[in-house]
Parts: sequence; structure tokens; C-alpha cells
Amino acid sequence: MKRILAGTALALALIATGPAMAKPGDPGREKVVAAIKSDHDASIERLRKWIALPTIANMGINHREGAEYMRQLALDAGFQQAKVIATDGVPGVFATLDAGAKDTLAIYFMYDVKHYDPAEWSSPPLEGKIVDRPGEGKALIGRGAVNQKGPETAFLTALRAFRTAGVKLPVNLVFVAEGEEEIASPHFAQVVNQPEVRAALEKAVGIIIPSASQSVDGQVTLLLGAKGAVELQLISSGEKWGRGPNKDIHSSLMANVDSPAWHLIKALNTLVADDGHTPAIDGWFENVKPLTARQKELIAADVAAGNEADEMKVLVIKHWYKDEDYLTASYRLAEQPTVNIQGLVSGYMGPGGKTVLPGRAEAKIDLRLVPDMTKDEAVSKLKSHLAKRGFGDIEVNVSGGYGPNQTDENSPLIKAEQATLADAKIPATLSARSAGSWPGVVFTGPPLHLPAGQFGGGRGGGAHAPDEWLLIDSSNPKVLGFDGQAILYADFLYEVARTAKAKR
Amino acid sequence: MKRILAGTALALALIATGPAMAKPGDPGREKVVAAIKSDHDASIERLRKWIALPTIANMGINHREGAEYMRQLALDAGFQQAKVIATDGVPGVFATLDAGAKDTLAIYFMYDVKHYDPAEWSSPPLEGKIVDRPGEGKALIGRGAVNQKGPETAFLTALRAFRTAGVKLPVNLVFVAEGEEEIASPHFAQVVNQPEVRAALEKAVGIIIPSASQSVDGQVTLLLGAKGAVELQLISSGEKWGRGPNKDIHSSLMANVDSPAWHLIKALNTLVADDGHTPAIDGWFENVKPLTARQKELIAADVAAGNEADEMKVLVIKHWYKDEDYLTASYRLAEQPTVNIQGLVSGYMGPGGKTVLPGRAEAKIDLRLVPDMTKDEAVSKLKSHLAKRGFGDIEVNVSGGYGPNQTDENSPLIKAEQATLADAKIPATLSARSAGSWPGVVFTGPPLHLPAGQFGGGRGGGAHAPDEWLLIDSSNPKVLGFDGQAILYADFLYEVARTAKAKR
Repeated sequence: MKRILAGTALALALIATGPAMAKPGDPGREKVVAAIKSDHDASIERLRKWIALPTIANMGINHREGAEYMRQLALDAGFQQAKVIATDGVPGVFATLDAGAKDTLAIYFMYDVKHYDPAEWSSPPLEGKIVDRPGEGKALIGRGAVNQKGPETAFLTALRAFRTAGVKLPVNLVFVAEGEEEIASPHFAQVVNQPEVRAALEKAVGIIIPSASQSVDGQVTLLLGAKGAVELQLISSGEKWGRGPNKDIHSSLMANVDSPAWHLIKALNTLVADDGHTPAIDGWFENVKPLTARQKELIAADVAAGNEADEMKVLVIKHWYKDEDYLTASYRLAEQPTVNIQGLVSGYMGPGGKTVLPGRAEAKIDLRLVPDMTKDEAVSKLKSHLAKRGFGDIEVNVSGGYGPNQTDENSPLIKAEQATLADAKIPATLSARSAGSWPGVVFTGPPLHLPAGQFGGGRGGGAHAPDEWLLIDSSNPKVLGFDGQAILYADFLYEVARTAKAKR
Repeated sequence: MKRILAGTALALALIATGPAMAKPGDPGREKVVAAIKSDHDASIERLRKWIALPTIANMGINHREGAEYMRQLALDAGFQQAKVIATDGVPGVFATLDAGAKDTLAIYFMYDVKHYDPAEWSSPPLEGKIVDRPGEGKALIGRGAVNQKGPETAFLTALRAFRTAGVKLPVNLVFVAEGEEEIASPHFAQVVNQPEVRAALEKAVGIIIPSASQSVDGQVTLLLGAKGAVELQLISSGEKWGRGPNKDIHSSLMANVDSPAWHLIKALNTLVADDGHTPAIDGWFENVKPLTARQKELIAADVAAGNEADEMKVLVIKHWYKDEDYLTASYRLAEQPTVNIQGLVSGYMGPGGKTVLPGRAEAKIDLRLVPDMTKDEAVSKLKSHLAKRGFGDIEVNVSGGYGPNQTDENSPLIKAEQATLADAKIPATLSARSAGSWPGVVFTGPPLHLPAGQFGGGRGGGAHAPDEWLLIDSSNPKVLGFDGQAILYADFLYEVARTAKAKR
């Protein structure tokens, strides 16, 4: 999952967290909690084994193996049926668990992880070593620890505990998983649009992806929406252009031969304004919906509780764009669609120089979209913009993407999340919109229109970076360890049944 | 040495080459020729050993070892003294051979080679394997085979032969070498400006670098000049800019954080006109001298003898810039100073995308300069241009460079080259100016004002590319093999003495 930048919530810590008290209507909760605790070592071992089998979509690693493993994990956790769903890319997984309950909750998993360079890690990225994390407790190091196998394992541990304890699940479950989240989910809609999958999802009150999102102060931010993201590569080449060379040639020929690299620079230059920031693609802001008063209120609350200096320190920046103040910059983070350069690739890229005129140049771009923009609209506007200016030869290679998502804060799903956290004395804030992205739009958009969000306690870090970690045994009373995460999911299942019932 | 693009000379083949006939005033020539031939196997072995010790300036490989080896090769070939000259970069070598002659010739060597990727080679790049080259003969494959250790070894073989044969050298020799030619000779002036070195060079009638430059038709092109080249990297970073991040951060922050990559794109965009080709740096053309009528005449002769379709095929292009005709494009190749992008480096550069906003972006640039531009002028104009437009924070990291050079076609050096080739029945044309570059300006410019050029017979290819090769045994009667190259150098030494004497 994309690292989520959920505003800047670093609220004042409230007192203590830990397993919530059982409520009337939580039959068997003590037995479930006991089962989670006695399953601790086996759960961590399952997480470690899963980490040892990385599925990396853009490297072609473990596509089928990862899907089959995911399917098996679902069956082992109690799903009655689970199947691999073929797509034009990495397969998805679909599973169901009919508990004979009145209401159904949907669950979304990603089984892929970001690529990694072992040389940058302090312990092997697939080993799952347990290390001391001073002031926080014991953490497991591994690719996928927090993004997203760790929290997902905690969710599955909760399900297993119900079965082990012989306690009926409070809700039925529908499960969908994909192996391409890290490349912006190019084929996930193919999974969700399967008639059988769609029919199952339509019954759900909402859908969550497990996440471990407590700050060091114990705070959880509940996202009500996220920007959409489109990843694409713009490729200028002599081959497609019909001008300039078809390979790297000697750089002295710049005198009388056209340059695909300069062609790309000239094209890129038209995509943002002279400030090097504001998107300048024709019609880009046409469907941008301004923030509502309520959204601004939520952002202002985040900002009031946040610490600008700390945030700048983490980002290693000294100024926001245009030297805006913290509140204005935070509004902009939520509301402005972006055109970002992720990377530039052309010609010689080693130390010093090399006398070549490259036959090819590539800019890796991501577009972030806000309601009511759509992926198709964004890509088509970009292509028209380029074509209109004589850059129609530049390939727009869309490698993934999806539109923005938004969920009503009054939906039973969000209410259940809030109630679960309140019972656990975990401080929670609502975030109007994450500037980071997740493919929630396949659920929140037509035809499903499901409330969707990320949910979970616990804490980790280093997603997409070396030494990714998940806290297993927490020495910080404000933050849940692994067992606490699983118990929180158990409580959430009870709570979903309760809020859904109230709604009926 | 930079691959030289000496116009497009592919003249009609004249008949046969091979060792020239001795002239009156070539005392001992037969003995020298015999010594060269009997030294054949040992010469090739010396070349092979030299190739096995690559000095690669920008990788920090064999800087001292390469210089010391060069010094030893000079001493072994008969130089009476040879010393390593320290510089602020890779050391140079200076040697002298006083033959008690009236006149002195200077020799310039490069002992460094371009970097390489063994995976791209058909045989190990440091092995010097002999392979069949259909229609041409036997060739030696290795990094440096043609650029420039092969021709340089042939020259040293000629010197050894005089000593072995007990024949007095017709001229005294002054030798200067560098180990940074492949990174545009950033410190070579420090070698040449040593008082002892300069004093020795001042006595010379001119200076050559050995080269194997026959076309498959036997043709040799004698360069009367070459463009200058400046290699530099333009680096935009949050650190130097004071805006944007100091490291790669999550790409969603493009909404409210400045982007060093976009900052670079905006800066690059100002360096060339909207055609993506014509330099737009303020004052760039101020000191550009138009081609003379004689230079145009030489270029037109090249074009008349050339084959546009073949050349386009080699370059894999379909059009010259602006769809110009071959003659106009050839004028432009010689006369237009350029701003070329060699490479682009920023953020994520692997397959697909990665959601980062890079803290740094780099463009690798080369500038090609024509008379009367200078390196200092070019760099200072670039810096002022950037500063004036708000890009003063972008680092201009000059990794090497030098101005253009020009030599009078009526100098004794060029006359001796022409006479030597005529005697050997090797067809020769004069090239007004190479668009490729070599640091001849340290000799042709103030204070030395020496005629300077590349000279040699024989043939090779693949400079800067995989499978670099030098023809050793030629089955093509129009092209010299290794022994023929060495004999041509011996004849050239006799000829230099003769033309210099005529001039006295």
C-alpha cells in the first residue's frame, strides 16, 4: 500500500490503550482473546513465512506462488471457499466466509510488496528478524512487515481465534486480494468486476484493509478518502519520433541530429507552470471539487494538533510550496491534483559524463487526482495536451492507477471504527483526505458504492524503505503490540455487527 | 580519445598501400622495416599486456599504476628520460629522446580508456583476443585496441626498431601523456604548463597523437581542427536550492513541496530554443567564427565523396536537423556549437514507477565549442544564464573540457603527414574541422601555438563501445595492418625531418 500521509495528526496522547472491555453482545470475547494470545508464536511464524515469499509485481516475482499462498492463508484462517482469480496481470484472490450472520463485512488484502535492495538493510529483508526498538519494544524487520502482511496477519489471527475458541463470527466475510497494489492496481478492477465477486461484495456494509497506523503517541487517523494516483512513463525515442537516432550515438552529432532527450524536456516543460509546480495540462482543474467546509474543519483540526517543525524535519524541507503557512499547505496537500516526476532515465547515468546523444529518454510520472477527476479523464487530457503541442509521438505508458475515493463519515463502517477505538481508549481523528493513494475507488465508486477505509491498531514503519518494521511486543502503553492488533480486529467484528444492526 | 567524426570522407579507393619506398635521405630504412617485422609478435604481446591494465579516470581505476606503466613503456621504447607528472587529478607523463637531430617532433599519448561492461563483449575486454574479421583480416579485441593503445603501441614499435636496427632517429622527440582524456582532460594543462615540459614542447615543429584512421577503402582523413568540448553535470538538489526535500520523499507531497526535478526541467528548458536543438544560452554565438571559404570547400569535397544514405544508416536516423540537405547538415556539423544532453538521472530509475519525489536531479551535458569560443567563456556564460533566470542554485559541475583547436594546412607537420601518405599511396583528404573533440588546444593555443593533429594508418573501430578492435593482419590491400602502421610512423619521422629542413 502507498504510504499514507494522513494530514499531520500527532494529537496529544490520551491515556493507555490495550484490549477493550467486552460489551454486552460480544459473546465469547474472553475465549477469543485467550485464543489470540496462545496463538502468538505461531502467528509470528506465519507472518515470517509469508514475508519469506515476496510477490513483487514489477519484477515478475512470485506472481502465481503469491496468489496461491494467499488463497491458502485465507482457507487456513477459516474462509470456506477461496479461489485464485486470473487477470491480465498478477492474479487476485476471492474468498467468502458465511457465518450465518445477518451482516457482511468485506476485507481487502494486498499480497504483493515493494522491491528492495538487501544491501541497504541491517538484517535480511526476507528473514523477519526480531530486534529491539528502543522505547517502543520488540519489532520484526522484513519487507511487508507493516505494508501490509503484518496487519493482515493480525486480522487472520483474529479470525483463527474465533474458530479455535469455537465462537461464532459476528459477521459474514467477503475477501478480495490483489498482487499489484504496489504498481497501482492495474488489473484489480477485473477481480472486483467478476459477477460472483461483485455479488458478494454488494452484500457488505463496507470494506477495510488492515493497517497498523498508530503514531508513537498511540493516535490513529481514520481516512475518509484518498487521492487517486496514476503511474505512467513518458518515453521519447528516435524510433517512435521518426527523428533523432534510434540508439545512443556520439554526442558531437547534436550539431545536426535531433535529440529525443531534448524533445522530452520540451514536452515535460509544458506539463507544469513556470513555478515548476502547478499542473498546466489543458483542462486539468475542470473537475476538481473544492474542499467542503467539513473537510476544511477536519484538516484545520489536524493542523492544530500537528507539529509543523517536526514534520518539516522528517521531510528534510525548509519551506512549503510558495512559503505558504502550515494550514494553507495542508489544504493544498488535500485538494491539489499533482503532476510529479518520480524519476528521469536517459543515456549515460554513471559517474561523470559520457559523450553520447541518447536515442531514448524517459520520465517516470505520477498524477494524483482528487474528486471528481477520474483516471481515464486524466490520461486522456495528458495525451491530448501532448499531441496538441507536437509531442504526440511521446509514449504515454500507463503502468497503473485509479481515481480518488471518498467515504461518508456517517457510514456504519466509520462509526464502527470509531466505536472500536473509543472502547480501546485509542485516540482517533478523522482525516478528510489522504494525499497518498489506495485503490479504494473500486469499492467506493460505481457500481458498488461501499464505504471503504484502512483500519487497525499497532505500529510500524519503513514502508517502501529499508528495514521495514512492525512492532510485535510493545513496551509503549499507548501503542498496541501484535496481539493487541488482533484483539482490536476481533472487537471490530463485534462492533460492525452492532452498528449494522442499529442501521437496519 | 573521443571518436572522431571527420566529415564523411569515403573517397574512391586508390590503388594499394603498404610500406612506402625509401627515399634518398632515409638512411637505414630497410633495417628499421626489418626490425619492425621481426618484432611483430612481441609488439602484439606488449599491446595485450597494456590493455590488461586499464586506467579508467572516472572510476578511480589504476591512476598511479597506469602512469607508471606509461613511463616504463616510454623508457623501454628508447626515451632517455621519462617522469610521472603529478596533477590535481590523474598524473601525466613527460619524456624526451634527444637523437642529436636538428628538429624535434612532439608526441601526445593518452593512457586511459573508456569504461566498459564485460557482459556486452563477445570476448573479455582486457584479454586482447585475436579474431577473424571477414573481408578485413585478423583483429585484436580489447578496450583501448583502437582508442588509443593500439596505434600508440605501433608508434613505440617504430621507435624500438630504430634502436634495434642501430639507426639514428631522424628527429628528437618530446613525449607528453595523460590519463584523463576520456573525461575531457581536466588537468592536462597542468602537465603541459610545467616549465620543463613547456620548454621542451616549444622546440617541436608540431605534435601528433597516433591514430588508426583508415576507412575500409583505405582513406585517411587529416584533421585541421576539432571542436572543443566541455563536460558538465547540472545538479538540482533540495540541499543547494534550499527548497524541496533533501532526499527522496513520498510523491504525494508534490502537492505542497517544491520539486528539484521540475526545477531542473525548467532550467534545462531555457538552454535550447523551442526546436529542442538551437542553443539559447545568453551570448552563446557571440564569438562564433563563420566557416571560411576554404573550410567550406573542404567540407563540400568530403560531402561529394561521401554517402549520405550509408551515414544515416550507421546513425540510425532518417532526417538531419530541420530536414536539411547533406551539405547544409555537414556545414552545421562543423560550425555549430552545441548543448547536448548525455544523460538524465533522478529518483527512481528501475522498471515501472515508484512513488517518490526525488531530492536530486542531474542532467549530464556536453557543450561543443567552435573557434573562437573558449571553455572559460562557455562555462561562465552558462552560469550567468542560469543565475539570471533564478537557477543560480543549480550546480554546474564541470568535469572536464577544453576549447577548439585549429592547425594551418601549410604547416610542416601537415605537409609531412600528406607526403608520408602520398608515398605510401594511401588516399588522404583534409577535414576542415571535426565535430568530435580532442584536447589539441593545449598545443595549438597560447602560449605554444604548435601545429597538432592525429596521424596514422591502419584501421579499427568500436571506440567507447563493446568489442573495440584493431586490425593486426590486414587481408585488405587498401588498409595497413599493425606492422604497416609502425612502418608508416618510421617513414613519417624521416618525412618530418625533411619538411622541417626545407622550412629552415
